[in-house]
Amino acid sequence: MAPLSELFLYEAARAQHVREVIEPLLKNGVTVLCDRFADATTAYQGYGRRLDLPWVESLNHLATGDRSLTSHFFLDCPPGKGLERALEETGGGNWTKRARFEEERLSFHRRVRKGYLAIARKEPQRVKMIECATG
Amino acid sequence: MAPLSELFLYEAARAQHVREVIEPLLKNGVTVLCDRFADATTAYQGYGRRLDLPWVESLNHLATGDRSLTSHFFLDCPPGKGLERALEETGGGNWTKRARFEEERLSFHRRVRKGYLAIARKEPQRVKMIECATG
Repeated sequence: MAPLSELFLYEAARAQHVREVIEPLLKNGVTVLCDRFADATTAYQGYGRRLDLPWVESLNHLATGDRSLTSHFFLDCPPGKGLERALEETGGGNWTKRARFEEERLSFHRRVRKGYLAIARKEPQRVKMIECATG
Repeated sequence: MAPLSELFLYEAARAQHVREVIEPLLKNGVTVLCDRFADATTAYQGYGRRLDLPWVESLNHLATGDRSLTSHFFLDCPPGKGLERALEETGGGNWTKRARFEEERLSFHRRVRKGYLAIARKEPQRVKMIECATG
């Protein structure tokens, strides 16, 4: 799949998720906890796939209706370690069970982490880094 | 589905179609004929769904890699007539067979036609209107 198509699909999912699930909950005063949000698109599609960052960020703003996370907990670990864990969870050698990002080279995951670190540096108030390399 | 999610899905499909099918053909000197392209997104999602037009056009440029049609043949007929024909083709009363746009009200289809007419007026050299209301 073309990286740009992947970006558009993520933005489509995000736009729907925000309007159908998140906004009604927020309106009812519920606190919403998301496993990945717009920052993940910046890290994976912007840094990982090397798409134009200002474009990715513009599309994120459009998809989320200018909503951003109040707090972002970034669980950091070296990409090699993270990949190892993900592959263990998805059955090791069984490639058919692996998600599209787990099939990427280590260099891709290093760029994604670099993206998250850049976001964390840019917005230290919002992004709380949690070191979880050991264990 | 949220109109914005629909827009992103069309842009995802367009981006993939351009990179996987159209560009390799053009590189080999083939003339490509498309049934709907970026103008359809401007007309349906911009005018029909009332999404912000400059945004729709920006996303179109991004998805097509700034490619636009050399010629656009716009087969014009009154929306009521067009809908009638589409419903005949898809089995009349059987709603399950109808596409998502055919289920829209006539006012939606009027806005879509208004969109195509606006594009035709803006780019008369590129868009050739073909009247096909009769028959």
